[in-house]
Formats: sequence, structure tokens, C-alpha cells
Amino acid sequence: MSTPSRFKKDKEIIAEYESQVKEIRAQLVEQQKCLEQQTEMRVQLLQDLQDFFRKKAEIETEYSRNLEKLAERFMAKTRSTKDHQQYKKDQNLLSPVNCWYLLLNQVRRESKDHATLSDIYLNNVIMRFMQISEDSTRMFKKSKEIAFQLHEDLMKVLNELYTVMKTYHMYHAESISAESKLKEAERQEEKQIGRSGDPVFNIRLEERHQRRSSVKKIEKMKEKRQAKYSENKLKSIKARNEYLLTLEATNASVFKYYIHDLSDLIDCCDLGYHASLNRALRTYLSAEYNLETSRHEGLDIIENAVDNLEPRSDKQRFMEMYPTAFCPPMKFEFQSHMGDEVCQVSAQQPVQAELMLRYQQLQSRLATLKIENEEVKKTSEATLQTIQDMVTIEDYDVSECFQHSRSTESVKSTVSETYLSKPSIAKRRANQQETEQFYFMKLREYLEGSNLITKLQAKHDLLQRTLGEGHRAEYMTTRPPNVPPKPQKHRKSRPRSQYNAKLFNGDLETFVKDSGQVIPLIVESCVRFINLYGLQHQGIFRVSGSQVEVNDIKNSFERGENPLADDQSNHDINSVAGVLKLYFRGLENPLFPKERFHDLISCIKLPHMHLK
Amino acid sequence: MSTPSRFKKDKEIIAEYESQVKEIRAQLVEQQKCLEQQTEMRVQLLQDLQDFFRKKAEIETEYSRNLEKLAERFMAKTRSTKDHQQYKKDQNLLSPVNCWYLLLNQVRRESKDHATLSDIYLNNVIMRFMQISEDSTRMFKKSKEIAFQLHEDLMKVLNELYTVMKTYHMYHAESISAESKLKEAERQEEKQIGRSGDPVFNIRLEERHQRRSSVKKIEKMKEKRQAKYSENKLKSIKARNEYLLTLEATNASVFKYYIHDLSDLIDCCDLGYHASLNRALRTYLSAEYNLETSRHEGLDIIENAVDNLEPRSDKQRFMEMYPTAFCPPMKFEFQSHMGDEVCQVSAQQPVQAELMLRYQQLQSRLATLKIENEEVKKTSEATLQTIQDMVTIEDYDVSECFQHSRSTESVKSTVSETYLSKPSIAKRRANQQETEQFYFMKLREYLEGSNLITKLQAKHDLLQRTLGEGHRAEYMTTRPPNVPPKPQKHRKSRPRSQYNAKLFNGDLETFVKDSGQVIPLIVESCVRFINLYGLQHQGIFRVSGSQVEVNDIKNSFERGENPLADDQSNHDINSVAGVLKLYFRGLENPLFPKERFHDLISCIKLPHMHLK
Repeated sequence: MSTPSRFKKDKEIIAEYESQVKEIRAQLVEQQKCLEQQTEMRVQLLQDLQDFFRKKAEIETEYSRNLEKLAERFMAKTRSTKDHQQYKKDQNLLSPVNCWYLLLNQVRRESKDHATLSDIYLNNVIMRFMQISEDSTRMFKKSKEIAFQLHEDLMKVLNELYTVMKTYHMYHAESISAESKLKEAERQEEKQIGRSGDPVFNIRLEERHQRRSSVKKIEKMKEKRQAKYSENKLKSIKARNEYLLTLEATNASVFKYYIHDLSDLIDCCDLGYHASLNRALRTYLSAEYNLETSRHEGLDIIENAVDNLEPRSDKQRFMEMYPTAFCPPMKFEFQSHMGDEVCQVSAQQPVQAELMLRYQQLQSRLATLKIENEEVKKTSEATLQTIQDMVTIEDYDVSECFQHSRSTESVKSTVSETYLSKPSIAKRRANQQETEQFYFMKLREYLEGSNLITKLQAKHDLLQRTLGEGHRAEYMTTRPPNVPPKPQKHRKSRPRSQYNAKLFNGDLETFVKDSGQVIPLIVESCVRFINLYGLQHQGIFRVSGSQVEVNDIKNSFERGENPLADDQSNHDINSVAGVLKLYFRGLENPLFPKERFHDLISCIKLPHMHLK
Repeated sequence: MSTPSRFKKDKEIIAEYESQVKEIRAQLVEQQKCLEQQTEMRVQLLQDLQDFFRKKAEIETEYSRNLEKLAERFMAKTRSTKDHQQYKKDQNLLSPVNCWYLLLNQVRRESKDHATLSDIYLNNVIMRFMQISEDSTRMFKKSKEIAFQLHEDLMKVLNELYTVMKTYHMYHAESISAESKLKEAERQEEKQIGRSGDPVFNIRLEERHQRRSSVKKIEKMKEKRQAKYSENKLKSIKARNEYLLTLEATNASVFKYYIHDLSDLIDCCDLGYHASLNRALRTYLSAEYNLETSRHEGLDIIENAVDNLEPRSDKQRFMEMYPTAFCPPMKFEFQSHMGDEVCQVSAQQPVQAELMLRYQQLQSRLATLKIENEEVKKTSEATLQTIQDMVTIEDYDVSECFQHSRSTESVKSTVSETYLSKPSIAKRRANQQETEQFYFMKLREYLEGSNLITKLQAKHDLLQRTLGEGHRAEYMTTRPPNVPPKPQKHRKSRPRSQYNAKLFNGDLETFVKDSGQVIPLIVESCVRFINLYGLQHQGIFRVSGSQVEVNDIKNSFERGENPLADDQSNHDINSVAGVLKLYFRGLENPLFPKERFHDLISCIKLPHMHLK
């Protein structure tokens, strides 16, 4: 009380304390509000996600339905075509038709996958978001209960602090007042002693007596006050100790709440939120990635079919489809007139010289024609190559159209500009058609020339054979050497090769020319069979098969059949290999011609071959 | 004429020839028809492809527009939210909101990509098919012209054969007739000679004269017929030769046409067809593959964001968003009452024993409480782990839904059955909520216990300090040892740590408690800085930095600032390392406590450590 301006008044302290507590209380309310707001935002976000996926499911369903309709429309149209009937029969399609079928399949696949996507959105993803929303609300409520309890505890602690602080103030005030009373008593005593210390002898006895009792009284009072002060002092100390201890406990509690409990409360609200959201979004991602994989598989199948767009096999199939139109006709046979027994060019004396002259003329004419036609052929081939280059330029990469869609800005107008720019396309096409024109002109020229050459060559070859025979006319038959004699009487009585030329023990070139098979069926069929079943077979081409079976297969081939056509390996692989060996061994002119045999052998014997 | 049944009559031969030619003619017509039909089928296929892609482009456009609308709808909604404002400001989103934004972005990306796809269909793929259709028709026309020419040539050859065959027949017939006449003459001559060989003497002279002139006449006629026969014979031989030569040439021509020219004609029709179709389909494939790549990129971005769904950083951000709600309040300070100069628990004689007793009681009470609460904590943590396991099960793989879509049969009903089967979900959720209930009960129990412990522990620690001081009361200040004395007068005059506890040369635990920083900023910041710039630096932690800079950084940290916050390495890495070393070196209680030092050292000295 001596320096009232230096110390805070009780009221000030209380007011300060109360404002501090009020602030904390406000914060607690604010915290709860924040958590509530967070939960509301979460619920809103989850609602948005549900709405979003519901709407997207609708879009996917519609997309799927449209694709389905598209596929169905063209499928129905295709099912009625001749191609489809054919397809059902032998599963063998022209390569462009195959691509077309796969395109339709891909659309159906996409349709199904987008329907599945929609289904997953509706029945899985959205359900998850609903549950997360429920969970978030529940977690918030539970954590609110806990928060309420924690706030109550905190308030109790703060109230306790208030109480002990007030107690301290009270006891301290009492202690101060006791102390001041004690001091007053001491002062009085001193005064008394000071007065009695004055000329004692001057004082009257009764006065002295009076004084003594007064001193005693003062002493007694002082003692009393001393006791009172000590008592209050101790109380004050204890109260201060209690205050200090409670202060420490309060600060510890408040900080525990702010540093740990608050964080725990937020964790309670969050419990499972991120993990469940993670799972829901991963379900979405899984669906999308799987859709992508499926789509990619389909595209790969189409790409494979596009790789197999091939004119050669289509041509083969096309010709097989119309055998009556494309099967070569019978040869024109020599029709002998009224028992004319000579069916061979006659080169006896009277005509020999003339034939010889004609032969020589043909020879020189052919030489010229061939040179000329070779030139035309070269030009035509070069032109064809140019066209091939034109029609195979790799102008189909459209990645750049998707490039900009990855950047944020939409530059849509460039799409139609960059690829297939109209003027350049028109120019390219005009150029292509001009080249075509030239190609067809040259091709025509070439075909005409080669037709003439074929005709003259046939005559030339026949004359050559005839004139050659003329020199050894004595021991010659009247038939050409490579065409086996056909006794007409026996034609139907024994199983003959359906081919005009010999298959086994014949001439390969003649056979190819006559049969029209670029590779003789026997070679193709045996190689295919060995390729299918024989590559892992030990001793293939070394171990000999059954002679009976070899003969069976051989005869079957002779009759023009294909005994190895069905895809079952009901033939001994060694027998099949045996047939192939037999065929090659029997060839009139071996694959490696006799006249080249020694050259080939000497090639191998060369000590150092410079392989470059 | 002697055996008319054995030889074919001229008429038969002609008829046979004509039927053979007719057959060829029919085949040629048939071939042309086949090629025409093939071209028609191609044009039809290309028309179908165009229709197909036109319709698909429509579907893609509609899909794209729907997606665009979807994205726009939610974007507009989101743009107005507080989160979005925040996002625009600091680009820092709560992780679920980030996922949501990316989802919307993905939809926009898909929308754009499908629009591009549609554009490519319309402006590129369809155009290509149109051109191929045009080309096919043109090629067919050109090859038709060539075919016409070839057929004409072939007919000429066949006509020639007919002519030479007829010529042969004629000359041969003449030769036969001449031969028979000659033979008749020979017979007559023989008869004449036979008659004159008879009894010559019986004949009259005039008769003999008559006979002689008749013999001469016959002889003359025979000679004449002989000449005629020879002439006709030669003509016949020449005609037969010509016939044979022409026959050879005809057969060669026919076979050339069937084997080579026909194939060339088909090639002409095919010219560029497969290659152009290939390019058109590859354009489609390129567009689809690029769409897929773009989509995949977007999904990967989302997946990355889903990986980063993280409660910890979201909590941090959440608390930063509301600093007033979550900032710890001021400490409650000791309010001395009316000049009470003691601000410390007094442990002088009168209360010492009591405090000691209370301290001991607190100690034993705390020990019991801690044991009890530790049990509760363990139970609560185990329960939390169970919940974590429940909310993180990997149940989001939906590949199986797409499995069947790859097979041909649609088994759509299984989709909703296999995943998220309703009863099992309900059971799982019930189980989860029960576990939650238990967890929250235990958590509450634990929090109550730990709150009590915090309070008592604070009192206990204060008493411990006080009583400990009691023993060395003489040289002690009245302040607690770890709180540096705060001379109020100098408060503003010298730069002080903003923290109550000491940072440098202080106690780590006290600092962590007081500052609320789980990891002191100085440690986090220095480690981050070294991590960013120092890992490749030679001599880091060995070479000492600039002492001036070390002091600067140290003082900055003391003031509560973060001198290493900006991302520029304008500090010497050695100085930063020096600050970190200085901090750890100065800690009152080293990281490896002194009392454990010798144990740790003796650990290292163990000869064989069984690492298991």
C-alpha cells in the first residue's frame, strides 16, 4: 500500500486473468467451429464427387449405348453379305474385310467397357463416397464429444487457478495487515519503552504502575500480533506455494491441450478419411486403367490386322473364290487330220533349209524384241516403284493433334491445318494420277511386247527342238522329248498324273509352267507338314520312313491330291520327309544343275573366302 | 477314208475347237465380271467405312461435349469456393481438393481428346477412304482397258490357229486326194503292163499299137499325178508345220495370259489399294493410340495426387489456415500480490516437511497413474492400428470386371456381384464402427488420464526443483534453473530469444516443450539446406565456415527467424553445417546422454556383436 502505483491492484489482476481465460474460451469455440467447417467442406466435396460420378456414369452409359448401336447397325448390315457367309464357312476373310470386322469388334468392346465403367461408378465409387461422407460426419461428432470433455477439464483447471490465486491474495493481504498491525504494536512498544526510558524518576508511582501495565499490555498485544502475523504469514506462504504449483499445472495443461490434444482431435476427425478417399479414387483409377488396357488390346489386334493387309494372299483368295473364271483352260492339242500319223514339225530335206532360215530370223527378231521390251519393263517397274513409294508414305501419325491437348491452351484450328493440308493433298494426288497414267501406258506396251515374244519364243523353241532332232532323226520318236507319250487308248485305264508334265522324275521348270503352281504343291505341303510337326523330331531327313507310306503319299500327290492337307499328323514324319527327298532326288535337272556341280564344289574348296 | 470311224471328221475337229474357244471367251467375260464385282465390293466397303467413321465422329463429338459440360459445371461451382480463392493465391491445396481439381482436369482433357478424335475422323480418315474409293474405281477402269486389249490379242491368236488348222486340213486333204489319184494311175499302169505281159503274140498289130499309145498315156498321167502329189504333199507338210508352230505359240500365249497376265491385271486393280487402306487405318490407330497416351498421362497425374493424399500435411495446412484458433495462448504468469517479492515456491522450514511429503505422494501417485495410462494407451493404439488396417485394405482393383469384356460373352450381371457385395460390406462397416466406438472410449480414457498426469507431473517437477534447490538454497536465485533470468528493465534493449527456453546452450527437451516445435526449426532448416545444396560438397562438416556468418545465422535463429528459408543458397554451406554443429555441441544434455556415454562406448568395444 506504500507504493500503490507500482503494484497491480487485485482487480487489475483478476481482470487480466479473466480476459486471458475469455480469450482461451473464444479460441476453443473457434477451434470447434473450424473443425465443423472442415467437416462441412468435406461432406460438400464428397457430395460433389458423387454428383460428378453420377453424371459421368450417365455420360458413359450414353456413350456406350451409342457405340453399341453403331456396331449393331453395321454388324446387321454385314451379316447379310456374301462375305459374311463365306466367313462363317471357312473363317478366311479378305484382309480389308478382316480389318473392318475388327473395327466393329473394337467398337463393341469399347461399348461394353464404357458400360462397365459406368456400372463401377454407380455401384462402387459413388457408394464409397457416400460412406466416407457418413464416416466423416460421425468422426466429427465423436471428436466433438471428446473436445467437449477436454474443454471442460481445461476450464476446471483454469477455475482452480482462479481460486488458488484468490486464496493467495486473501492470505497475503491478511498477512500484510497482520504484519502492519504487528509493526504498529512494535512501534507502540518502542514508544512506551522510549517514554519509560525518559527520566524515569520523574514519574509518579501510580503513573509508573500504570505504565508498567500498559507496557505489559502492549507486549501482550505484540505477542498476539506476532502470533497472528506468523500464522497469516505461513498461510500466505502455503497459498502462494499452492498458487505457484497450480500455475505450473495450469500452464502444463494448457500447453498439452494446444500442442498435443488439439492435434489428436484433428486426427480423430481425419480418422480413415484420407485412406478411404484414396481407395475410392483408386477404384476409379483401376476402372480407367483397365478400360485403357482393354482398349489397347483391341487396338493391337486391329494393328496386327492392318500389318497383314496384303494384296498377294487376297489375290490368291480372290482367285480361289471363282475357280471357274480363273482356272487355266485345257491345252490345244494337235488334231491330226484323217489319219495323218506325223504330229511333229517335219524338218526333212525339202523344208529344212526354209525352217532353218526362219529359225535364224526368229532368233534375231527375238533378241531385238527382248532388248526393247526389257527397256520398257525397266521403265514400267521404276514407275511402279514410284507409285508404291507414293502410296506407302508414312503420313498417318497424328500425335501432334494431341500434343496441344496436353498443354492447357486449346489450339484446335491447327488440327485440320497440319495434316492433310488440302492444296498439298490435291497436288500429291494429281502427281500420283499422272504417274499412274504413265505406268499404265508402259505396262500396256510391255504386255504387248511380251505377248509377241511369247508367241515367237514358242515357235522358236519348237523349231530349235525340231532342227536339233533333225541331226539325230534316226533314233528319235516323233514326240517332243519332255512331253511323255500319251497313248490315248490307255488314258482312263491307269492312274495318271493329272498334270501334263511329270511330277516325280520330271523337270521342275516344265512342271511349274504346265501346272501353274509357282511352288509345286508337294514341296509346299511337305515343308508345311515338317514345319508343323517335324522340327523337334530327332533324325528327321536321316531316318527313313515306311516305304509303303512313302509310296502312298507319292501316288496321292501324283493324282493331284494333297494327302497332308488335314491338320492331323496321321502320317509318320519320316515318311513325309522321305517323300520330299524322293521328289528332289528324282528331278530330271537337279536343283543344283550338274554343269554347275564342280564349280560349286570348287567354291567350297577355296582356302580363303573374302566374305564382304 | 479307209477307216472313217477311227479318225475325227473335220467337222468334229472344228466343233471341238470352237467349243474350246467359246469356253475361253466365257471365262474372259467371267473374269472381267469378277474384277468388277470385287471393285464394287471395295467401293461398298469403303462407303461403309466412311459411314461408320462419320457416325462415330458424331458419337465422339457428343461424348466430348457432354464431358465438357460436366467439367464446366463443376469448375464453375468450384471457382466460387473459398478453397479456390486460396488456391489461386498460394497454389497450395488440401490433398483431397487437389485430387478433385485433377479429376475435373482429366475430364476436360478427355473432352478435348475426343473432340480431336472426331476431327481426325472427319477431316482425315474419311477423306482417305473417299480417295481410296475413287482410286479403286479408276484402277479398275484402267485395268479393264488393258484386259480388253489382252483379250483381243488372245482372240487374234486363236483365230490364227483356226486358220492354219483349216489350211492344214485343206492341203492335207488335197495331198491325200492327189496320193489316191497317183495310186490309181499306178494301178492302171500295172494293169496295162499285166495285160501286155499276157500272150503278146495273140494280139493284133493295130491292137498292139493302140496299147502302146495307151501305156504311154498312162505313164504320162502317172508322172503328172506324181508331180501333183509331191507338190500337195509339200504344201501339206508346210501347212502342218505351220499348224504345229502356231499351236505351240497359241498354247504359250494362252498360258501366259492365265498364269501371268491375269495376275498382272488383278495387280493393276489392286494397285495402291492395300497400302492406302493401311495408311487410312493407321491414321485411325494413331489417333486412338494418342488419345490413349494422353488419357494415361492424365490418369498418372491423378494417381500421383492420390499417392499424396496425406493427413499430416493437410492438418498442418488446416491449422495454418486458422492461426487465431490454433495458436497457443500466452503462458499464465505469476502475479505477485502487492509487492510480494517471492515468486518461487518457498520450501523453508515450516512448510518443507509438508512439501516433501506431498512430493513423495505425488511421485507414487504418478507412478501408478503412468502405468495405468500406458496400458490404456497401448490398447487404444492397437485399436487404432486395427482401424487403420480396415481403412487401408486394397479392395479397389476392378480388373475382373473388364476381364469378361475381353471374352466374347457378356456376363454383365457378375459385375455388381463380385466387388462390393452388399452383405459383406454392411458387415464390414458394422465391424468398423464397433471398433471405432471402442477406440474413442479408450482414447477418452487415455486423454483424461494423461491430462491428470500432466497436471500432477507439472507440480511434481516444480516441487522436485524447489526441494532440490532447498539443499543449495544459499547460492540459488529464486528463479527456476532452466528459465534464464529475465531482467525486466533490459527486456527491449538486447536481442533476446523469442522462446522462453534457451535455444543455443539450452536443454532440448525443455525447448521442445516450450516452443511447441517437435523438431527445432534450426535442425529442420539446416538439415533441409544441407540436403538441398551440401550433399555433393567436399569437406562438409569438416571444413569450418566463416565465424561471422555462423554468428549471423545463429542470432537469426535465436530471434525466432529462419535465415535459410528462401530457396537461394546465398549462405556458405560450411557455415550452415557449422551452425548445426554449434547447436548440438552446445546442448545442455547431449543427444547421447553423458550417463550413457560409457555404455555406448563399451558397446562398440564388444569383440563380436551378434547382429540378429
